[in-house]
Amino acid sequence: MLQGHRTWIFKNKPVITATATTGGPFEARGKLADDFDILHEDLWMGQDSYEKAEKVLLEEAFLRTTEKANVTKDKVQFIIAGNLINQLTPVNFAARTLGAPYLGVFGACSTAMEGLAIGALIVNSQSGNNVLTGAVSHNAAAERQFRYPTEYGGQKPPTAQWTVTGAGAALLTAKGNGPYVTSATIGRVVDMGLTDPFNMGGAMAPAAVDTIEAHVRDTGVDLDEYDLIVTGDLGKIGRDVSLEMLAQHNVQIDESKYQDCGLMIYGEDQEVFSGGSGTGCSAVVVYGHLLNRMIKGQFKKILVVATGALLSPLSYQQGETIPCIAHAVSIEYGGAGQ
Amino acid sequence: MLQGHRTWIFKNKPVITATATTGGPFEARGKLADDFDILHEDLWMGQDSYEKAEKVLLEEAFLRTTEKANVTKDKVQFIIAGNLINQLTPVNFAARTLGAPYLGVFGACSTAMEGLAIGALIVNSQSGNNVLTGAVSHNAAAERQFRYPTEYGGQKPPTAQWTVTGAGAALLTAKGNGPYVTSATIGRVVDMGLTDPFNMGGAMAPAAVDTIEAHVRDTGVDLDEYDLIVTGDLGKIGRDVSLEMLAQHNVQIDESKYQDCGLMIYGEDQEVFSGGSGTGCSAVVVYGHLLNRMIKGQFKKILVVATGALLSPLSYQQGETIPCIAHAVSIEYGGAGQ
Repeated sequence: MLQGHRTWIFKNKPVITATATTGGPFEARGKLADDFDILHEDLWMGQDSYEKAEKVLLEEAFLRTTEKANVTKDKVQFIIAGNLINQLTPVNFAARTLGAPYLGVFGACSTAMEGLAIGALIVNSQSGNNVLTGAVSHNAAAERQFRYPTEYGGQKPPTAQWTVTGAGAALLTAKGNGPYVTSATIGRVVDMGLTDPFNMGGAMAPAAVDTIEAHVRDTGVDLDEYDLIVTGDLGKIGRDVSLEMLAQHNVQIDESKYQDCGLMIYGEDQEVFSGGSGTGCSAVVVYGHLLNRMIKGQFKKILVVATGALLSPLSYQQGETIPCIAHAVSIEYGGAGQ
Repeated sequence: MLQGHRTWIFKNKPVITATATTGGPFEARGKLADDFDILHEDLWMGQDSYEKAEKVLLEEAFLRTTEKANVTKDKVQFIIAGNLINQLTPVNFAARTLGAPYLGVFGACSTAMEGLAIGALIVNSQSGNNVLTGAVSHNAAAERQFRYPTEYGGQKPPTAQWTVTGAGAALLTAKGNGPYVTSATIGRVVDMGLTDPFNMGGAMAPAAVDTIEAHVRDTGVDLDEYDLIVTGDLGKIGRDVSLEMLAQHNVQIDESKYQDCGLMIYGEDQEVFSGGSGTGCSAVVVYGHLLNRMIKGQFKKILVVATGALLSPLSYQQGETIPCIAHAVSIEYGGAGQ
């Protein structure tokens, strides 16, 4: 690998053998409801806290993924997962349920692609097989931790985003059928000095642009080769900012093929301000809707640019700016390779 | 790699080209003071919050490591790091300062070895070079987040441990001189149903034992081959529990070669209850004291078993047990290999 490059090329094409997604009642009323494996009517998922409900979402996504892959949980060689909650608590407990060796990762809402990148690296380098990766978020758990309990009824500005209640998981194998991972570009922390936690899409947009540019530079790919380039949760405002920046940097991108998970998941009638967000956002959209479309032959090659705002309530209170990051993973299916 | 195995064998022997450690005033009065690169007289490190002080500790460890390796910071290809503070805030800001592509990891006090394992995997698989890894903790920042602000003056039982104020960093390269990483055994979540956050050593001991047993099973190593097997921060109580368990499981271990970082760092006259702990504990002891001793020829082969208690204040308040984990990394220097 060349000095200065930050893209891993996966020559052995680790296969995403199976995926599963779970969601809550709000997601069940969204545009992508049909793409979920499990949808809960109850935001509590039968638990007595939202954090435990979040654990259930990830646990179910993990277990359903292994069922779909016809792999028993004792055959899972590694788990790589994360979420937004302090100390990754719900993820730690879900990993306990699975019982496999576990690497906790944190990249805020970019976590799903951080996990997929590391998982693909493990499988590609023949350092493991049956690697399970996933990410989860729960709206009420995140609201309580980062802002106010939802019961408080705090008002939000239109730049705010709506944390997805949902989990997505994927099982990576050395061989098998399914979409496969071809590369991953690791993000660096980009901080443009923004401080408004109710406009995270705007703060994260420069990180997405930085990673897309690095991906092009490292791989020499023409972005037109992708049938879809999808950011994680920039939302309306972040997407507009990123398009402006890409144009300023002379990066040609076809706007119709440049989407955002946070703008895909909910319906027009659902009041989600600038769009969906949260660790679970790109996880459910990619591991559910988008891979389903790939398998149906609607996309052959996509680039997922998951974005994360690495702030904490404390860093905000201490007057710090919002450091952001974006990890990109390219996934292919069909065509000459299959 | 065989099914069920959880140990990576690094045939290309990634080299730890340089390391650096930083510490606070309490560590400056400890037994390993001479092994630190930078020691601060001021617990605030000139900052206006303990979290920012924690950022400074890691930033300095990162920068000093690159200086010692004679590598400019733009040559750092990846950073893999983590800590205990919510959303890894101090680490995110330190990664921003370095500017390199960054993977945030979380394994509580096992984080240093989680980072070293992933870093070695990247270098071993030729997916990167000049990979910087590190971990940090700050006593006052951790106390405030997990228990009470130290100013409150809460009493502690003798089973409690003392969070280290310090950071350790290491630079991994494909070639070079220095100790090299030969294998890593990834931990799984082990939870024996303990709930006392003031006895984390006891809770973590079974995780350490589980990982040591897996390491022996996967590699076929005779534990006697190690000049030192060092756990992260089991402390007095956890060390005793782990020795009992190893004996029960018929794992032969030479007690005189079985040490704990948390028991090495402070002097007899320092009141640290059952011993040191925190993400920074194994990071400063391994990247400072132990690698210094390896370079002096005092150890040829060591196994670091960093332990982590994956609890959060919320999971404790919600009556959950303490899920624990331990990641082991073997490091060698000198002998036939050099």
